[in-house]
Amino acid sequence: MASNETNPVYEDLMKEYNSGLSHSGVNGERLAKRLYELSFIGYTQVGGVRRPGLSDEEKMAKELVKTWMAEAGLSVTEDGAGNVKGRLAGKSGSKKAIASGSHVDSVPNGGNFDGPLGVLSALEVAEAWKETGYVPPKPYEVIVFTDEEGSRFNSGLSGSRAMTGAVSEEEMAQLRDYNGDTLEQVLLHYGSSLQAFKDAKRDINELELFVEVHIEQGKKLEKADQPVGIVSGIAGPAWLEAEFIGEAGHAGNTPMIGRRDPLVAAADFISKIPDFPKQVSETAVATVGKLEVSPNGINVIPEKVTLHVDIRDIYEEPRDQLLEMIEKEAQATAAKHEVQLNIKQNTKIQPVPIDKELQAGLADSLKKFDIVPTYIPSGAGHDAMILGRHIPVAMLFVRSKDGISHNPKEWSSLNDCVAGVHVLKDFIEKAMEQ
Amino acid sequence: MASNETNPVYEDLMKEYNSGLSHSGVNGERLAKRLYELSFIGYTQVGGVRRPGLSDEEKMAKELVKTWMAEAGLSVTEDGAGNVKGRLAGKSGSKKAIASGSHVDSVPNGGNFDGPLGVLSALEVAEAWKETGYVPPKPYEVIVFTDEEGSRFNSGLSGSRAMTGAVSEEEMAQLRDYNGDTLEQVLLHYGSSLQAFKDAKRDINELELFVEVHIEQGKKLEKADQPVGIVSGIAGPAWLEAEFIGEAGHAGNTPMIGRRDPLVAAADFISKIPDFPKQVSETAVATVGKLEVSPNGINVIPEKVTLHVDIRDIYEEPRDQLLEMIEKEAQATAAKHEVQLNIKQNTKIQPVPIDKELQAGLADSLKKFDIVPTYIPSGAGHDAMILGRHIPVAMLFVRSKDGISHNPKEWSSLNDCVAGVHVLKDFIEKAMEQ
Repeated sequence: MASNETNPVYEDLMKEYNSGLSHSGVNGERLAKRLYELSFIGYTQVGGVRRPGLSDEEKMAKELVKTWMAEAGLSVTEDGAGNVKGRLAGKSGSKKAIASGSHVDSVPNGGNFDGPLGVLSALEVAEAWKETGYVPPKPYEVIVFTDEEGSRFNSGLSGSRAMTGAVSEEEMAQLRDYNGDTLEQVLLHYGSSLQAFKDAKRDINELELFVEVHIEQGKKLEKADQPVGIVSGIAGPAWLEAEFIGEAGHAGNTPMIGRRDPLVAAADFISKIPDFPKQVSETAVATVGKLEVSPNGINVIPEKVTLHVDIRDIYEEPRDQLLEMIEKEAQATAAKHEVQLNIKQNTKIQPVPIDKELQAGLADSLKKFDIVPTYIPSGAGHDAMILGRHIPVAMLFVRSKDGISHNPKEWSSLNDCVAGVHVLKDFIEKAMEQ
Repeated sequence: MASNETNPVYEDLMKEYNSGLSHSGVNGERLAKRLYELSFIGYTQVGGVRRPGLSDEEKMAKELVKTWMAEAGLSVTEDGAGNVKGRLAGKSGSKKAIASGSHVDSVPNGGNFDGPLGVLSALEVAEAWKETGYVPPKPYEVIVFTDEEGSRFNSGLSGSRAMTGAVSEEEMAQLRDYNGDTLEQVLLHYGSSLQAFKDAKRDINELELFVEVHIEQGKKLEKADQPVGIVSGIAGPAWLEAEFIGEAGHAGNTPMIGRRDPLVAAADFISKIPDFPKQVSETAVATVGKLEVSPNGINVIPEKVTLHVDIRDIYEEPRDQLLEMIEKEAQATAAKHEVQLNIKQNTKIQPVPIDKELQAGLADSLKKFDIVPTYIPSGAGHDAMILGRHIPVAMLFVRSKDGISHNPKEWSSLNDCVAGVHVLKDFIEKAMEQ
């Protein structure tokens, strides 16, 4: 284990842990150690992590998970999209598998739970079975999906979309990462190829069910005072990329009148966005998280501003209404400021509902551990959403401190994390016996 | 000379050139070749240049100028701030020198005239004297100042300020460049040191007069249909650096209500800035040219937005009024959006008037070449402004096509550039004989 001089993750997890929760083969200390070890890969000086999809850091994190998978007795393989699979043969090899997992990539300065908790919870179920000698009747898969966050290509869920064949040839050709590299160049650096990426598509019906554990990234469980909750549906994001193009000039010698300043136009647009979501639904949201100015000199009127709008709702109709309103607003604002606008949709993903019977099964498992079921729509997209277009999926949320995520301050207590593992294990065991 | 496959600067300069303007030792073709050769250093794919202060590119550009200085018979030295001086001894070595020059650094994607034209015009005067055998009665200096634009440290005019002792110890300690490096680290990489930078301060009274040729970066000469004009005063810039700090969160799972989004706050602020300058003066301007979002992920509500406001007027009082209005607006906007604001002034430079007698001398020189005098206040700061606090300075503007500068499209015709050299030479010769 690396030095923890500047990284208190392990100590902070353990100091409030109720060790009575380590039972039935589930080991909270092991989970804490693994969260801690992953937290060093791509460690940022402010205590977060930077592990973009298909980066060296994401790869290192997967390699570490592979060693743990092997220790847990799983057979490890990786597909051409970088998705890692640890498989446990069931008593009968012929049946469909049950799978669980998540991702280990992060946003540019992300936290230690978004992604890793889902992977390590799935792995902890296999560890628990190994300790108690339980052999599942059906095969079990722990999956680490590549590039869920989308910080690499401005277009996320790459691994689960590759696995389900949902990345078109056109998208593969057009993707450019933050260095301007193509998907093919990135894959070659990673040790794969475009052909191998395409071949990552598997017969997804080999899976009977996929269950993902994830931090809530909101405050509903905190308000309900419950450690774990049930996801009732997953909002699909729509992403707009807008380029405002004006005319550069010297900041001192260009009179205010007659300027065509794309940053003033973009600012006018951004300042209006928060007014729109409430016009379509109570749950809709819209965010500009990424913006770049060119040439970005103090005394230069900008020539170009590129920004991305993330638009979501758990219902498709209001989400699409909101998308349209915001696109129109961008056009009107560009026209008003006499700047050029190039606007396109990069991602538009359907919301995914979660089967009521599966939600009821999760509720039964929660009650076994004295947890009152809380039903939470997920505003964030997840790999379960992509798989949910083809096979039944279920999701569990683990309480997030202050609802913060995508931030070094992201935190879930070890007690809550371990509660999540117990619920996941119980739910999967029931599905295994059916 | 390098290949001009992608760089038509030389051909474009020459194709409309009236070669009758090459006389009295002044050679338009030489000037065009030198502008062309400099245009390759830091060449950007869109036809501009990137030569930040104290970068390898700025250094290469200076090394090239040094070879030309030596060819013209000047004694070349460089001080610890990277200012290059080419000196011609006068008939009497004991008299004060007359100097001319400018800079060769650029904004991130700048043009080929802002800076280089002033250096090469000053050099062309020495070349002309060499050809005609004229020996000036007083010493003559051609000066290349370091880091005029400020794209390195967000704080410009470094070379001329170092030369006049106007960089405080506190500023030297606080400066950080775009990589987060200190001034000392940057100087060590450049081949200098902090002590040598301090020692660059010279007795500026060794200079009797400094004359700078610069492109206009505006449209007044174009409207007046004159190739060259007289600068009547130089506006001093004031720079504000504002950090808006809010709370990061997941773009999908954080409800709109209760968000503290620093980009929405910054956008609200930026969109209001264009309303302020006209409230204080007809000539005042304010620009946000540089802005950075952190962490800058599509699906992450930003935590921090850092931006710079460039505020100018040729009169000090309205400039300071505008500075105050904009600072108050930033505070009010931050409060409205419940985000934290850190705001500071990085640069605040007094406007510099230009002596009426020197302006009259320039007008006499213009008339000799059948140019009708046009008097233009300079909205941009220049090295002449810094020297103007200590010694008499004069400035000539050369017509800019469409008033565009700080942009690859920046252009002045070779006819106009050569007219500028003739006026400069005549004016300096008169000063030499006084």
